[in-house]
Amino acid sequence: MTATTSTVSKEQAAIEQTLTDQVIASFDDCQDERLKEILTSVVTHLHAVIRETRLTEEEWSKAIDFLTAVGHITDDKRQEFILLSDTLGASMQTIAVNNQAYEDATEATVFGPFFLEDAPRIDIGGDIAFGAVGQPAWIEGRITDTEGRPVRNARVEVWECDDDGLYDVQYDDGRMSGRAHLFTDENGEYSFWGLTPVPYPIPHDGPVGKMLDAVGRSPVRAAHLHFMVHAEGLRTLVTHIFVEGDPQLEIGDSVFGVKDSLIKTFEKQAAGTSTPDGRDLTGIEWTRCRFDIVLAPEDA
Amino acid sequence: MTATTSTVSKEQAAIEQTLTDQVIASFDDCQDERLKEILTSVVTHLHAVIRETRLTEEEWSKAIDFLTAVGHITDDKRQEFILLSDTLGASMQTIAVNNQAYEDATEATVFGPFFLEDAPRIDIGGDIAFGAVGQPAWIEGRITDTEGRPVRNARVEVWECDDDGLYDVQYDDGRMSGRAHLFTDENGEYSFWGLTPVPYPIPHDGPVGKMLDAVGRSPVRAAHLHFMVHAEGLRTLVTHIFVEGDPQLEIGDSVFGVKDSLIKTFEKQAAGTSTPDGRDLTGIEWTRCRFDIVLAPEDA
Ligand SMILES: [Fe+2]
Ligand SMILES: [Fe+2]
Repeated sequence: MTATTSTVSKEQAAIEQTLTDQVIASFDDCQDERLKEILTSVVTHLHAVIRETRLTEEEWSKAIDFLTAVGHITDDKRQEFILLSDTLGASMQTIAVNNQAYEDATEATVFGPFFLEDAPRIDIGGDIAFGAVGQPAWIEGRITDTEGRPVRNARVEVWECDDDGLYDVQYDDGRMSGRAHLFTDENGEYSFWGLTPVPYPIPHDGPVGKMLDAVGRSPVRAAHLHFMVHAEGLRTLVTHIFVEGDPQLEIGDSVFGVKDSLIKTFEKQAAGTSTPDGRDLTGIEWTRCRFDIVLAPEDA
Repeated sequence: MTATTSTVSKEQAAIEQTLTDQVIASFDDCQDERLKEILTSVVTHLHAVIRETRLTEEEWSKAIDFLTAVGHITDDKRQEFILLSDTLGASMQTIAVNNQAYEDATEATVFGPFFLEDAPRIDIGGDIAFGAVGQPAWIEGRITDTEGRPVRNARVEVWECDDDGLYDVQYDDGRMSGRAHLFTDENGEYSFWGLTPVPYPIPHDGPVGKMLDAVGRSPVRAAHLHFMVHAEGLRTLVTHIFVEGDPQLEIGDSVFGVKDSLIKTFEKQAAGTSTPDGRDLTGIEWTRCRFDIVLAPEDA
């Protein structure tokens, strides 16, 4: 009953195309031109998937069941549709489309589901851990525009998981840790104590996890630290830094967030190495990392 | 920040294509070749939608919210993903792909969500109403294969809504009405009393209804009566018959199920016209309709 695209007769192809055209024509009276444009594209490509793969009725039914399961596991705390978008690279493609490369501006990557609006403010050189356990990491850098001018008073939001690969919001005890915001100084400089990032799996006990399993993919994200930088008149930057040498960079980041330009060296500092701000880390290994940031103009 | 496809630079297009290729490559180790084929097609076209429309991050977020709402309204009684598939013509396209035209075999159309396995059996000439209210309609026809040979003992399932546009399962009282199955006789003939079909809206109080509203589309299905025909060695036929003269045929069927070959005449019979089986319909207008069915070979 099924056939590959190559064996489809002209008559059959015409029947299928007529149906697609009919659905697209059903949007003719749509007053919202943008919605019409998006739905036309969705229908064109949705029909193309069915026609190209010669999707069987049983496969269609499995797809409906899969989406139903994705919908049912989704609640206030768990957003499986975002996980699906992330793991199919759709989130990253949306970011690519909306944050086009501009001169030497720092590249953007996925936002992820773990940002909180009300993270504490710290001073430059402060500590974002607030009890989160992990290897201390000193992170510092300078924020400039694409002309090389320092960006003063930029708001830098940073957040990351702890050594168990969990964000504060993944615990049930209401803790807020491993996140903060700070502002750059008059030279555009910032620095803070965070944790050396570690890899962690995205939630994979649901339908998206089953999908990754079925295709033999790891649910693990390459180790990273999230940044979001806001500054007047400049394009907001949502990005991460990744850790040079992290084996997950080879295995593959489960949401396709890695860009070479965002892989940074977290230099190992032997226990006893003096710290930039005199913090006492006696007997503890720590790391340090430099991340200079270049912001594109707002309208770029 | 956004740009139409035509203004995308070569460099930007290459970045976007590289991302798509990377996602597709992530399926390289998938042992299930068919799953790999389908996911490759899904990713290719999903990314194409985002790139073609230059989807904004806000629009992406609205799409996630829409799918979440579709997931949350879906339960044992309401399948909003099927409604979505139906209203975007994806269900009908799947049917088109899997039920290719074969000589003069009767065309297939959507199955819909209202079929029940355990509808009562009636004899030829019996009544499927079981209390469903509507104008009586005598439906008769002959089932043959594409060689014109009568198909004996074919199982004919028929189901339809009542005059209020509701199927039995849409009532809360557990009634079973407006549905039955019967078997063709030795000449391949069948006949039964049903109801003259009336148009009805698909459930439109959810996200799919909102979508139809936003694009200015009617949720109403053209009046129809469902058929499913099983016969040994022949392709199972899932179809409807539509009603010539139904104004909804012009407005458009909300799930794109109409095919010209399936539009049938329900001939009006004045009150007092004698019935084929002597049924007493004194003072009641009724209709009659002929629907001859041709079944394709199983392996066509
Ligand atoms: Fe993260
Ligand atoms: Fe129906």
